[in-house]
Amino acid sequence: MSSVNIIELAKYLNISKSTVSRALKDSYEISEETKARVRAAAKELNYQPNPYASSLRKHSSKTIAVVVPEVLNNFFSTAISGIEDVALEKGYHVLIYLTHDNAESEVAIFNLLKSGRVDGIIMAVTSNPDQTNHIKELHDRGIPIVFFDRICDNFDTVKLVTNDLESACKATEHLIEKGCKRIAFLSVLKTFSVGNNRLEGYKQALTKHNIPIDESLIVRGSQDYDNNYQLIKQLLRSSNPPDGAFAPVEKMATTFYYACNELKLKIPNDIRIISFCNLETADLLQPPLSTVKQPAFEMGKTAATLLMNSFEKKKYKLTNEIIVLPSQIIERESSR
Amino acid sequence: MSSVNIIELAKYLNISKSTVSRALKDSYEISEETKARVRAAAKELNYQPNPYASSLRKHSSKTIAVVVPEVLNNFFSTAISGIEDVALEKGYHVLIYLTHDNAESEVAIFNLLKSGRVDGIIMAVTSNPDQTNHIKELHDRGIPIVFFDRICDNFDTVKLVTNDLESACKATEHLIEKGCKRIAFLSVLKTFSVGNNRLEGYKQALTKHNIPIDESLIVRGSQDYDNNYQLIKQLLRSSNPPDGAFAPVEKMATTFYYACNELKLKIPNDIRIISFCNLETADLLQPPLSTVKQPAFEMGKTAATLLMNSFEKKKYKLTNEIIVLPSQIIERESSR
Repeated sequence: MSSVNIIELAKYLNISKSTVSRALKDSYEISEETKARVRAAAKELNYQPNPYASSLRKHSSKTIAVVVPEVLNNFFSTAISGIEDVALEKGYHVLIYLTHDNAESEVAIFNLLKSGRVDGIIMAVTSNPDQTNHIKELHDRGIPIVFFDRICDNFDTVKLVTNDLESACKATEHLIEKGCKRIAFLSVLKTFSVGNNRLEGYKQALTKHNIPIDESLIVRGSQDYDNNYQLIKQLLRSSNPPDGAFAPVEKMATTFYYACNELKLKIPNDIRIISFCNLETADLLQPPLSTVKQPAFEMGKTAATLLMNSFEKKKYKLTNEIIVLPSQIIERESSR
Repeated sequence: MSSVNIIELAKYLNISKSTVSRALKDSYEISEETKARVRAAAKELNYQPNPYASSLRKHSSKTIAVVVPEVLNNFFSTAISGIEDVALEKGYHVLIYLTHDNAESEVAIFNLLKSGRVDGIIMAVTSNPDQTNHIKELHDRGIPIVFFDRICDNFDTVKLVTNDLESACKATEHLIEKGCKRIAFLSVLKTFSVGNNRLEGYKQALTKHNIPIDESLIVRGSQDYDNNYQLIKQLLRSSNPPDGAFAPVEKMATTFYYACNELKLKIPNDIRIISFCNLETADLLQPPLSTVKQPAFEMGKTAATLLMNSFEKKKYKLTNEIIVLPSQIIERESSR
């Protein structure tokens, strides 16, 4: 059931907002008759009181929420650093909420955010959002939202992404240029824009180089990394194993390293690999890992700057646009 | 200047809390005389109104705050996962606040927390807290606080630590047993319990094995890692360089790896290293890094469990105790 705010309630009753407010607070200044009318309408229209509404309208909570899947992932923890960088400078506090890539958690977090604690939201949505009503409800109430990395197309606001498709295509082509003919795709993300774009980039590169797409080379992993480890080992031990691997997710690359270690496969001699990865230690791995490095810090910084501009400048409005910050391919030993 | 809450104010005036409350709200039910008396006392005693006080007393915000230096550190991001694990199960929300190891930021965060948004706090304090009044103020108001890792001794509550001194001693002894005679200590933390305990453990191990403590082997780094990198290189290039290194901080170990790479020093042949470290990729580094692995996940889980027990069970109270969760020494190639 949808709810109304105090402005809508006042409009419906054709009385002033302050009269509604005082009636709901059982003020002695308001007649019992009016109080009864207001209470009945509030019930009928499902009015949801918001104790922090006035603070919110003035943007005075000086707090923004960052909703991300996890902080054990270097992309997100680095993006948060970028957000914090701007927030500290502008005197804003950052509250971090983790969804664990779980749609139900995301809904629960938005229920919490409904209480009006924040001036705005920066978020990377979960991989499988069944619906986005919870986001819509807050957005409709005027809470500005900026999406990054894992974006939601159906909102009129700024979305920050990297050039996933193009980078994935380039990374795959890089392996092809090194002589790889059977390139595995080690995915985790499911029915999701980021994952889909990277898969599409991988497929485009193969097609461009006349390499047939072999579905058996596409590992479709989950959040269960023990299982992902088994899936990768299974592929590496198959009768027709890959000679290269492209990981669209950092943790799949390290899982791949462990699998190769166990199977005594040498990277890059037996198999090459390149991965989307923001690990600070990519350079120190045995062998150093070739990476597609996302502009995580810049993305966080840009998201926070745009969101805060929308608070501060009356004229600045978050418009419906996609801003692309390019990723950088860094070739290291693992794909030589 | 210290402040009083409404209960203390009522006690001082010898009138009921609800009378004070209504007087402060300028209620028509209260005489002008009483209102004037209440206002004067409120000013005199520095009464701080707390709009969410009633919600807080009922522990109804169902939200806890986690205050940590950073999330780009695997120890803290893993501890947060442990906290979230318990919070999700118990239906609590977790708000994460980052201090960037800056005492001023910590004070600002506590000013925000004073508005009464959370039922309790789990925190690792900054390295250089000049004072702890901001923490005391909230603690005195009845907000339960559990400290972990970087604890604050002067509060009557549970503090979770690992056996820093003992683990540091064992790690140093491990290097001595491998034949190291000149062991560097690569510190970052400053005048701080965790850092001091680890330094003390290092010194105890040397003393036990009749190795003189050489201050020139103690690198005193800062948050400026470019500078730390220079300090380490300087030490490695000195006329009497170390043959082993103990890093009480993960990032000093990776900085050390980079320095060795640049100077073409081979680990462990030219120099051995062991580090406090929760990097998931410790095993995949070139060479695999020997680590003192802190029980980060368990620490987060225990902190959250104890804090939430203190909400739910009227009989459970956070008492003044230090709980030690042991770290684990994992020997790998870097110290062989």
